[in-house]
Amino acid sequence: MKKFAVVLCGCGCYDGSEIHESVMTLLAIDRNECQYSIFAPDADQYHVINHYTKQATNEKRNMLAEAARIARGDIQPLTALKAGDFDAVVFPGGFGAAKNLFTYALEGTNAVVIPEVERVVREFHAAHKPIGALCIAPVMIAKILGDITITVGVDEKTIADVESFGAKHINTQQTEVIADKENKVFTTPCYMLPATIGDIADCADNLIKAILENL
Amino acid sequence: MKKFAVVLCGCGCYDGSEIHESVMTLLAIDRNECQYSIFAPDADQYHVINHYTKQATNEKRNMLAEAARIARGDIQPLTALKAGDFDAVVFPGGFGAAKNLFTYALEGTNAVVIPEVERVVREFHAAHKPIGALCIAPVMIAKILGDITITVGVDEKTIADVESFGAKHINTQQTEVIADKENKVFTTPCYMLPATIGDIADCADNLIKAILENL
Repeated sequence: MKKFAVVLCGCGCYDGSEIHESVMTLLAIDRNECQYSIFAPDADQYHVINHYTKQATNEKRNMLAEAARIARGDIQPLTALKAGDFDAVVFPGGFGAAKNLFTYALEGTNAVVIPEVERVVREFHAAHKPIGALCIAPVMIAKILGDITITVGVDEKTIADVESFGAKHINTQQTEVIADKENKVFTTPCYMLPATIGDIADCADNLIKAILENL
Repeated sequence: MKKFAVVLCGCGCYDGSEIHESVMTLLAIDRNECQYSIFAPDADQYHVINHYTKQATNEKRNMLAEAARIARGDIQPLTALKAGDFDAVVFPGGFGAAKNLFTYALEGTNAVVIPEVERVVREFHAAHKPIGALCIAPVMIAKILGDITITVGVDEKTIADVESFGAKHINTQQTEVIADKENKVFTTPCYMLPATIGDIADCADNLIKAILENL
């Protein structure tokens, strides 16, 4: 049974991992008869957004403790994730991923990737093991690896930014997956395009199937 | 296109709505070509549990603001939910549902249902519109309506408690639905039995299909 690592960074699209993308990734792994383990950085989120009012609050929340909500408590610190223990790694998206895992939502092309995330991506890449990324997370993989081929849907500003990192972009329609088989990087647009929750489930399932076909 | 109301009470199994059950309910409604609107009480959760350490914290969190994470911000206060606007209502579960929507996890058979939830359940029941409940939430419907038929899986203590409310219990295996067609109450065990995330998706899909067959 193939083993996937899933990397989260909180719980909620505006300040953490996008919940539908995260849950549909877990569902897709299960539906394709594979196992998953969930990881998150043990550090505070960039900030906390009240998802009803859309306003920032003055709270502090920890990425690992909040992601544990999606994981029903079955989660480990990202420092425990070793590429040798898994067949592939997947990064769901959300604005929060672009604030917590790297700083693209805050600093654009000057985005900084947190070191532990960069370590994980480089470890899987060096081991020629698949890296999956949904929604905005492909921008992070492009920032780290540079010369890869990804999709973020059709958003022109984001496409220009990933091209500035040395990546090639391919436009996609909803639920399509771009498979960079040479680099074993697999990406799908999710909420970077208009989407129903069913589209997110299809994106995730297509992504996991593409990874399994290219292990 | 049939319209479902989904009632949440936070975001996370230990202190709010169980996330997988909530998201799979939304997915099942979408997959069956229906629409959903999401509601939650605008009041503080009973408490906040760190889902990594499993310890209570001294934070305050609002059910509506936290459930908005699952809803991606598209949510309304429970006071806005009128049975006349919908074809059916669904209550996902979680320990948090049994702390926030009613107090079963805290007070057992002396559980109190919050008035706005009781109003909603009685409105749908009086209108002969379906009420769906997952996991522990069927206990709440039994507490309100009394003489109905439900399932919570096979847990003997919980079964004795719902029978003390005047309800009839039918044991179920994972992903089965009990349809009380006379009362239009539909229930499924979810995390009241050992479950994979795929089982939760199947429970939710079976529940929505049973409701649609009995509108």
